[in-house]
Amino acid sequence: MTDPTRIWTAALIVIGDEILSGRTQDKNVAQIAGWLNVQGIRLREVRVVPDVTEAIVEAVNALRVRNDYLFTTGGIGPTHDDITVDAIAQALGVPVEIHPEARAVLERYYAARGGLTEARLRMARVPAGAMLIENRMSGAPGIRHGNIFIMAGVPHITAGMLDWLTGKLEGGLPVLSATLGCWVAESEVADLLATVERAHEGCQIGSYPFFREGRTGANFVIRSTDGASLERCTAALAEGLQAGGWPAIPGGI
Amino acid sequence: MTDPTRIWTAALIVIGDEILSGRTQDKNVAQIAGWLNVQGIRLREVRVVPDVTEAIVEAVNALRVRNDYLFTTGGIGPTHDDITVDAIAQALGVPVEIHPEARAVLERYYAARGGLTEARLRMARVPAGAMLIENRMSGAPGIRHGNIFIMAGVPHITAGMLDWLTGKLEGGLPVLSATLGCWVAESEVADLLATVERAHEGCQIGSYPFFREGRTGANFVIRSTDGASLERCTAALAEGLQAGGWPAIPGGI
Repeated sequence: MTDPTRIWTAALIVIGDEILSGRTQDKNVAQIAGWLNVQGIRLREVRVVPDVTEAIVEAVNALRVRNDYLFTTGGIGPTHDDITVDAIAQALGVPVEIHPEARAVLERYYAARGGLTEARLRMARVPAGAMLIENRMSGAPGIRHGNIFIMAGVPHITAGMLDWLTGKLEGGLPVLSATLGCWVAESEVADLLATVERAHEGCQIGSYPFFREGRTGANFVIRSTDGASLERCTAALAEGLQAGGWPAIPGGI
Repeated sequence: MTDPTRIWTAALIVIGDEILSGRTQDKNVAQIAGWLNVQGIRLREVRVVPDVTEAIVEAVNALRVRNDYLFTTGGIGPTHDDITVDAIAQALGVPVEIHPEARAVLERYYAARGGLTEARLRMARVPAGAMLIENRMSGAPGIRHGNIFIMAGVPHITAGMLDWLTGKLEGGLPVLSATLGCWVAESEVADLLATVERAHEGCQIGSYPFFREGRTGANFVIRSTDGASLERCTAALAEGLQAGGWPAIPGGI
């Protein structure tokens, strides 16, 4: 029996100098966050760490114990800067081993691509005791070890792995959301937002201002695990905005 | 006198449920990372935390002591979910106060926009002892307290604040980089990359694979604080790739 009040949480560690240098715009945070939400799991914390063993070990050990799930992205390729598997094995205190099934997958994948070299065989290395996450895109699988999910850095490869994992993780109720856009300075409606939120238990209202077309506006995102509450809270906010002379645009701007 | 071997580091805390829910794609990590690099400061760690006081306090206290600078983005607006100032004050053990100069800035800014309401005055609140960071975009200033820099969540407002801060922070030598793109599977050249990196002290080579136009490729990013070393390392890698039959494309693909 699923306990409907149980909140399932996840953390994500993005591993890679390329994100910290500003060279690459991360896409995995938004992608994994959205996917987790559909599984009924909330992403509670993200850390971006460099390709440095100690930094990865510290983050893994801090986050794996206080969340139901821990995801990592990046650093599982064949090159010298791919140290994720070794660092996670060190964090867990287990050796690194060649996973026979991963080796077989790579042998098949590289049969028509020049064969399985030593560098490529690195991608079959896992922390001892791991299972594989299927990679339909490019051969090298992802890795699951206990509550840790080791994913690729390339977003579309991780997308494929997430697709394969869909429905396989236990979660709670997904968080539902509704958005109201409004051409109003959020400072004008700060009191209204706080009042409406307080009046609707289990609902949260986030306010996200923007400046567009030379005008000030904001999107208000209402979140709840309960559809009926969400609807009531959204309606109350829309009424409040209307009454103030700021008609809301359902779905946001 | 600047010590050329001193490495200056920064951490960044991105505060906001909207990033963790996947609703909003963060742009501040890449923006601040790139700006820091030009100041000779390396972004060493990023954490994304929810709009929860305890989470912000924990991250602030973990990161402010082990980095030269700590930046935060998000949660400094006028609404009930903007709790960054209070959380940082709590982390520092100082009270929150109205900054007189911030109040004056907001009074001027809102004079022709309906006046300074109580909600808007929230944006003049700072941890006691803070200085202001000019915001040329939208009135409400950023905040500096010791080595902590409290910036806006909206990327173009933070861009303006960074612009104002340019040249004001002490840093070391900026990290220089060169990129070589190549239509090759990175697993083919893993040994070459490791060998070239080992032969050039002070240089790092990152390998970033991609799949485009149905083909496998990678960009190799060479980084060093020394321009001459960078040039030698890049030339050696280009030669190695050429010798293997994979001509490199300077600047990347």
